[in-house]
Amino acid sequence: MYESREKLRADAEQIIQASIRRVLPEEAVRRALQGRTFGRGRVVLVAAGKAAWRMSDAALSLLGDRISGGVLVTKYGHLQTELPGIACFEAGHPLPDENSFLATQAALELVKDLKTEDTVLFLLSGGGSALFEKPLVSGKELVRITGQLLACGADITEMNTVRKRLSAVKGGRFASACEPARVLGILLSDVLGDQPDMIASGPVCADSSTCEDARAVIRKYGLELSREARECMERETPKNLKNTEITVAGSVRELCRAAAEECRRLGYETVFLTDRLCCEAREAGSFLASVAKSHADTKTSLAFVAGGETVVRLTGRGKGGRNQELALSAARGITGLINTAVFSVGSDGTDGPTDAAGGYCDGGTKALLDAAGVDIYEVLAQNDSYNALAKCNGLILTGPSGTNVNDVAVVLIKRETERF
Amino acid sequence: MYESREKLRADAEQIIQASIRRVLPEEAVRRALQGRTFGRGRVVLVAAGKAAWRMSDAALSLLGDRISGGVLVTKYGHLQTELPGIACFEAGHPLPDENSFLATQAALELVKDLKTEDTVLFLLSGGGSALFEKPLVSGKELVRITGQLLACGADITEMNTVRKRLSAVKGGRFASACEPARVLGILLSDVLGDQPDMIASGPVCADSSTCEDARAVIRKYGLELSREARECMERETPKNLKNTEITVAGSVRELCRAAAEECRRLGYETVFLTDRLCCEAREAGSFLASVAKSHADTKTSLAFVAGGETVVRLTGRGKGGRNQELALSAARGITGLINTAVFSVGSDGTDGPTDAAGGYCDGGTKALLDAAGVDIYEVLAQNDSYNALAKCNGLILTGPSGTNVNDVAVVLIKRETERF
Repeated sequence: MYESREKLRADAEQIIQASIRRVLPEEAVRRALQGRTFGRGRVVLVAAGKAAWRMSDAALSLLGDRISGGVLVTKYGHLQTELPGIACFEAGHPLPDENSFLATQAALELVKDLKTEDTVLFLLSGGGSALFEKPLVSGKELVRITGQLLACGADITEMNTVRKRLSAVKGGRFASACEPARVLGILLSDVLGDQPDMIASGPVCADSSTCEDARAVIRKYGLELSREARECMERETPKNLKNTEITVAGSVRELCRAAAEECRRLGYETVFLTDRLCCEAREAGSFLASVAKSHADTKTSLAFVAGGETVVRLTGRGKGGRNQELALSAARGITGLINTAVFSVGSDGTDGPTDAAGGYCDGGTKALLDAAGVDIYEVLAQNDSYNALAKCNGLILTGPSGTNVNDVAVVLIKRETERF
Repeated sequence: MYESREKLRADAEQIIQASIRRVLPEEAVRRALQGRTFGRGRVVLVAAGKAAWRMSDAALSLLGDRISGGVLVTKYGHLQTELPGIACFEAGHPLPDENSFLATQAALELVKDLKTEDTVLFLLSGGGSALFEKPLVSGKELVRITGQLLACGADITEMNTVRKRLSAVKGGRFASACEPARVLGILLSDVLGDQPDMIASGPVCADSSTCEDARAVIRKYGLELSREARECMERETPKNLKNTEITVAGSVRELCRAAAEECRRLGYETVFLTDRLCCEAREAGSFLASVAKSHADTKTSLAFVAGGETVVRLTGRGKGGRNQELALSAARGITGLINTAVFSVGSDGTDGPTDAAGGYCDGGTKALLDAAGVDIYEVLAQNDSYNALAKCNGLILTGPSGTNVNDVAVVLIKRETERF
């Protein structure tokens, strides 16, 4: 049994490494640029988001001096070195600040006199919404409207419908500003479903929402807008951008696909369940444990892959994250199944406010915790999964990965004959 | 689109009918008795549970006067007609009453002088735990101990470990009482995992728990027991029953298997996920909707089957049940996917305190509810799924089925070319 558990854990580590490797900023940019040529015109680079530096660095090593200038804006502390020919900014996240506006203005100036044969290489990653912004109303008014939207319970689509109209670069407006140049958008998506106009409110993506939609949201929630904000609601966003091409080069779908491929390579017959998971972490863990239990007597080794972004129901003040909570919750259900493991990992390598990327549990986890006097129900009630997993070798430690496309969870079940 | 929705709904109805049919008491008994012979000895019948009458009636029509006597005990209101040669009782459920004890005593007397060549046909279904009981302590003491076990948060295994020892028929003791006759147990299981010693505390099943286990539970929770109850804890239950043969003839596994088979027959490529679901109903609905969303662009029609017994998190005082809540919760996630449906149904035909068996939703459900001014979040917060589903043709109405093996939920996704 000991060897069987070691083997499962080793498989898990391989699957985790292969999955995260696939969605690293460098890999995503390399895949998206593979085989592309850029004609005779200029190529300029605009990069925004937490992975902006690494995406830009990758583009520069691939395209070298074919890139004739650029602007990069990333979160404070995320800039590694200066990049040749690129104006580099650090700015506020999750709330935009003056530096966000400065950087965005610099990008707008860079692209304003481009010609038809030129290309804007637009590299976007998580956090881009705050980092890449030029508001059309005062910062105070923007905060006031955002506050109202949050308070009234508007969903993310409704929120973006209003906010896109308050911005000079969102809802496709940055692509308009690049005209007549071509825009090649390479996106690292942290939004489930990877709708490009949802990622950072789609600076280079035709907006599917209309002024009429925005007015409906304002009526529905009785929002109070200043005169200038009301005027913004009447200015339509681009609906038909002929100059843009968008590639979602890294996303939770890629993460899950890589996990599934690695599972198959390791000999597991693999079922891809979803890359859209958004339920509660502990309930997802329970669901996956139920799947494992019903297949414990399998004749072939099996894997089930489910990715997305679960949520933690806060009921305590412990230390943990959604991936750790999912795994720990699953541990209860698979107790005693020595051929079974459930693990969940965040692609960014930092799950919640912890130094772990996620959690790993197998059929022996609960016994280890019992022996340590740890009760899983109690731990979940306290949201203290980190400290519990630390006691049963259940933490997955990868270090920060520099990418963020959300999470992947995997159930592994070894067939009978491979058990020891 | 209208026709596509009608077709999906028709498929769902067929799947529901085929699934429930498979686990009807008559079907279960018929399958279990198929091809069996009973030698020269007597065959007596003992039946306990909510489906006792229907299981007995089926056994009598199959074996006729080969059955030379019997005792049947079911819940009040569940007796249909008298059965020839069978002493019929109605008794208390979920708490046992005097009639439970009278009926059980009658069964013990029926089997006490049997011989090696004789057979006891033991038909057990949900509710059997309360209906088939002969306590070894006073009723008052039994209630006092059960109350303590519930209050201290003992799990179901711990609870049964103690309670089996307080009973003259549980934990395999009824099978001992039948010796030297053979016992053929036919079980309709309402317990996830179908462990026979968990179903009604296993009257004809060797007990895997020991006196030492029982003492550990008592120490762990500091239970207070009377002297007579403490003496019961020292009397070991049967560990090795050579005279019994047990068939779980109907269970949630059969229900799910039948659902999966019918899905395949209707042309859906089908993934059996689990028959052990025990998470929150609304979160299971969200999980299944996530699965549906990630496969919406499938090239072959797909089905996912997940059964078990979810739980409702009570946050309001509306009308509904776990199956209705699961389906309604899924409706949010599959909004706009015209080729997709999620439904969930209880095999007993009565989901929660309602006249519906479960709920059905498709990609158009949310729009119908929006038009009716119904907000799904609000409905779930009020646990009022029944009234919401009534407004969008989402109630599944089968009438009481007379069986109970828990629930099955299904995701159906029609491939592109079958959409209208």
